[in-house]
Amino acid sequence: MKIIIVGATGTIGQKITADLEGEHDIIKVGSQSGDIRADITKPESIKKLFQEVGSFDALVSAAGGGHFGPLKEMDSDDFQVGLNSKLAGQVNLVLAGQHFINPRGSFTLISGILSDDPVYASANLAAVNGAINSFVAAAAMELENDVRINAVSPGVVEDSPEFFDAFPGHIPVAMDRVVTAFRKSVLGAVSGEIIKVW
Amino acid sequence: MKIIIVGATGTIGQKITADLEGEHDIIKVGSQSGDIRADITKPESIKKLFQEVGSFDALVSAAGGGHFGPLKEMDSDDFQVGLNSKLAGQVNLVLAGQHFINPRGSFTLISGILSDDPVYASANLAAVNGAINSFVAAAAMELENDVRINAVSPGVVEDSPEFFDAFPGHIPVAMDRVVTAFRKSVLGAVSGEIIKVW
Repeated sequence: MKIIIVGATGTIGQKITADLEGEHDIIKVGSQSGDIRADITKPESIKKLFQEVGSFDALVSAAGGGHFGPLKEMDSDDFQVGLNSKLAGQVNLVLAGQHFINPRGSFTLISGILSDDPVYASANLAAVNGAINSFVAAAAMELENDVRINAVSPGVVEDSPEFFDAFPGHIPVAMDRVVTAFRKSVLGAVSGEIIKVW
Repeated sequence: MKIIIVGATGTIGQKITADLEGEHDIIKVGSQSGDIRADITKPESIKKLFQEVGSFDALVSAAGGGHFGPLKEMDSDDFQVGLNSKLAGQVNLVLAGQHFINPRGSFTLISGILSDDPVYASANLAAVNGAINSFVAAAAMELENDVRINAVSPGVVEDSPEFFDAFPGHIPVAMDRVVTAFRKSVLGAVSGEIIKVW
């Protein structure tokens, strides 16, 4: 399979890449590095990515950020960060990519536990993750030619100890469980699923 | 109570207004009409609204739109419509309003059934509604001075027959049930709840 991995050099993306390369033809996409550079906050950059790659079988996204900070200090610009990046960025990968993906292909996006189990200062990322989950459920009904779409929703991952203090009482998730969830989406048959890893 | 109703002249907003006025001091806000005009897609317009109103006890929003259309024809601009209006618009009412609301006040936003039970062409509104629901859960943990926040999530309402064909198999919801849900949020004691009316 020809698999595009967006955010291939990130904490989670590099583990997904290591898991799938060898077996598959991987195209690594990053904002700063990778086989192709793309800025997912810019729709034109996403279009250029697909024009360059052409047809493909699976797109995996482990990309996109948001604002983390107390609600009482949050303003409209802060909230916009996650909307532009992790939300619209990932959705635009699907909206543009649906015209390039092969029949029986798949999209896998990343959301996260904060939609269901928020922590202090997580209002922006909670909203973004909730949006991704509901988008996936809606989009799964409309993708044609047996194209599938899922989201992987991880808890705080064991490779990100810098976040542990912000997630009191959350048990860090083993990276191999996260990678396995992406594998389920890419190589399995499910669609419209939020694959929770927590 | 001094209650700001945003979207007061809309299908749902006018019923909420009719229910609460008489008992309370209502400030009707609309984009085209009302006591105060405000465009919730513009953060500056929202700031101006609160500067004009000053302190208040409850804010109710039944405002904000999104894009309704098939996924295969949806582009980044279409998807942005709901992010700017129903999502960021309502969130920005809370982010700015938190600095003006009285202790023990409340925010009530509107989401909708599509987050959980999407229909064809609803990917944008599904995402927006999912985001609002998760934002509410996260924000409820951080609002200070016993300020509460909830979302009312209605199904397709009986007063909008023009949408019935787009919601096959959905049973239209009686408007008095929707109004009662807003009443529960404004006059009750719950916080962080998604009050489903379907």
